[in-house]
Amino acid sequence: MLILKLGGSVVTHKEKPFTPHAENITRLAAEIAEADAQPLVVVHGGGSYGHPVATEYRIAEGYREPTQLTGFSKTHQAMVDLNGIIVRRLLDAGVPAFAVSPSSFIATEGGRITGIDLHVVERLIESGLVPVLYGDAVTDTSQGFAILSGDQLAVRLATGLGADRVVLGSDVDGVYTNDPKLDSDARLIEELSLSSRGGEAKIGDALNTDVTGGMQGKVAEAAEAVEAGIEVLLVNATVDGRVKAALRGENVIGTVLKR
Amino acid sequence: MLILKLGGSVVTHKEKPFTPHAENITRLAAEIAEADAQPLVVVHGGGSYGHPVATEYRIAEGYREPTQLTGFSKTHQAMVDLNGIIVRRLLDAGVPAFAVSPSSFIATEGGRITGIDLHVVERLIESGLVPVLYGDAVTDTSQGFAILSGDQLAVRLATGLGADRVVLGSDVDGVYTNDPKLDSDARLIEELSLSSRGGEAKIGDALNTDVTGGMQGKVAEAAEAVEAGIEVLLVNATVDGRVKAALRGENVIGTVLKR
Repeated sequence: MLILKLGGSVVTHKEKPFTPHAENITRLAAEIAEADAQPLVVVHGGGSYGHPVATEYRIAEGYREPTQLTGFSKTHQAMVDLNGIIVRRLLDAGVPAFAVSPSSFIATEGGRITGIDLHVVERLIESGLVPVLYGDAVTDTSQGFAILSGDQLAVRLATGLGADRVVLGSDVDGVYTNDPKLDSDARLIEELSLSSRGGEAKIGDALNTDVTGGMQGKVAEAAEAVEAGIEVLLVNATVDGRVKAALRGENVIGTVLKR
Repeated sequence: MLILKLGGSVVTHKEKPFTPHAENITRLAAEIAEADAQPLVVVHGGGSYGHPVATEYRIAEGYREPTQLTGFSKTHQAMVDLNGIIVRRLLDAGVPAFAVSPSSFIATEGGRITGIDLHVVERLIESGLVPVLYGDAVTDTSQGFAILSGDQLAVRLATGLGADRVVLGSDVDGVYTNDPKLDSDARLIEELSLSSRGGEAKIGDALNTDVTGGMQGKVAEAAEAVEAGIEVLLVNATVDGRVKAALRGENVIGTVLKR
C-alpha cells in the first residue's frame, strides 16, 4: 500500500488563484498509471484553489463570526473543483480514481485528526479503486472548523491503513542542508534521521506562503509515519519521472526520512 | 430539524443529460432562504446528472467487471458537479450550505444503508450550516457498489438525526387515487395512511424512468420515517411557493403520510 501526496504547488499555479497546473496534473496522471502501483491512495494539496478563500475568511483560525460559514463552504467547494479536475485526469489516464471528501467524514480537534473511520476508503481500495483525497476545510470539535492539511491527512492515512511507503511530492527536491535558493552551497540530504534532526535551521523552508506549513511542517507531520516504521520519501513532483520512480521503489533524487 | 429532499426531476432537466434546472434551483434556493427553517438538511436527487452514467455502466446492479469502476467514479463525479451547482446557488441566496459527499462516509449493504455515522453532519448543523447531500454511487459490502437513492438517504437522515419533518419535493403534487396523467378523475390524496395503503394501483407512478424508483418507492422509503413518528410531506417542488410553505409548516397542496 502506497500513499502519494501531491503538493498544492505541484497541482496548481500557486501564484494564480484557482488555476490548475494542467501540465503537471496530466504528466503525473500518466506517471501514476505507468507505475501501476496498487493499492494506492492519492492526496493532494490546495495551492491556489484552497488558500485564497481560506485566507480571506481566516478559516484556519477557527470559527469567529457567521460570515465565515460562507467562506468555510467556499473553501471546500474550491477544493472539490480541484479534486474533480485531478480525478478526471486520472480516469483519462486509466487510473481508477475515486473522489473522497475529507470534510464528509473527518472532524479534527484543534486542527488535528484524533480519530478517523477508514471503512469507506478501505472498501474503495478493496474494490480496486484509487481513493483521491485532499487537504480540506473540515469541522473541528474545539474551534468550529479548521484547515486539514494534505500532509497531515496523508500521514494519518498511511498509519491508519498500514501503508508501506508514503511519497510526499512537492516542488523541491527534498530537505537541504540550507535553503538552496539562498545558499548555493546547500546540499540535498539523501537520508534524514529524524532522531538527529536537531536545529531547525537545517531544514530549508519551502518557498511561498503555505497556510498549512512548508517543508519543516512536512517533516514534522511525517515523523508519525516514520515512527510507525513507514518509509517516507520526499521528492520533487514537478520533475518528470520522479513520482513514477518513487512509486515503483526505484532509486530517485529525494530525501528519505528515517527514525 | 427539517429534511428537504429535492428530486432529480426538480433540480435537472431530466430528459437532457447533464443539464441543471437553473430556474428551479434558483427559485428553490430563494424559498429555502426565505423559509429560514433551521436546522435543515437538504438532499437532492441525480436526474439527468446521475442516471445516464449509472445506467450506461449498470452501477445499480453492482460490480460485475472492471470497466464499471470508471463508470462508478464518473457517476459520483456527475453528482459532485450537480451538488456544487446547488450548493453555490444556495450560498448566493444566503443559505449557509455545505456539501457532504455520501459515498465518502456511507457504504450500503445490498443497496440499503445499514449503519450511518452522522457525527460530521451533526457537527455541521451545530455550526449553523445546512448540509447538502445527494443520491450517490456508493460502495456496497455485498455487491461492490450500489446506487443510494436520495429518498432513502433523506429518510435515514431523518430517523438518524431525529428530524421533526421530512419534505419530499418532486414534480408531482403528491399521491393520487390514480395516475392523473392517465385518469382525469384522479384525485390528490391529502392524507395517506400507510397502514391502509392497500392496493398499489392507488399510487400513481411518477413520470419518467427513475433507476431509484418513482412515487411508489418514495412512499415505501418514507414509511420508515412515518413509523418513527416523523411527519412526511410530499409536495410539488416545481410549483412556486410550495417548498417554502412546507418548510414553514404552513398549509400546502400535497400529501401528508400518516401511520
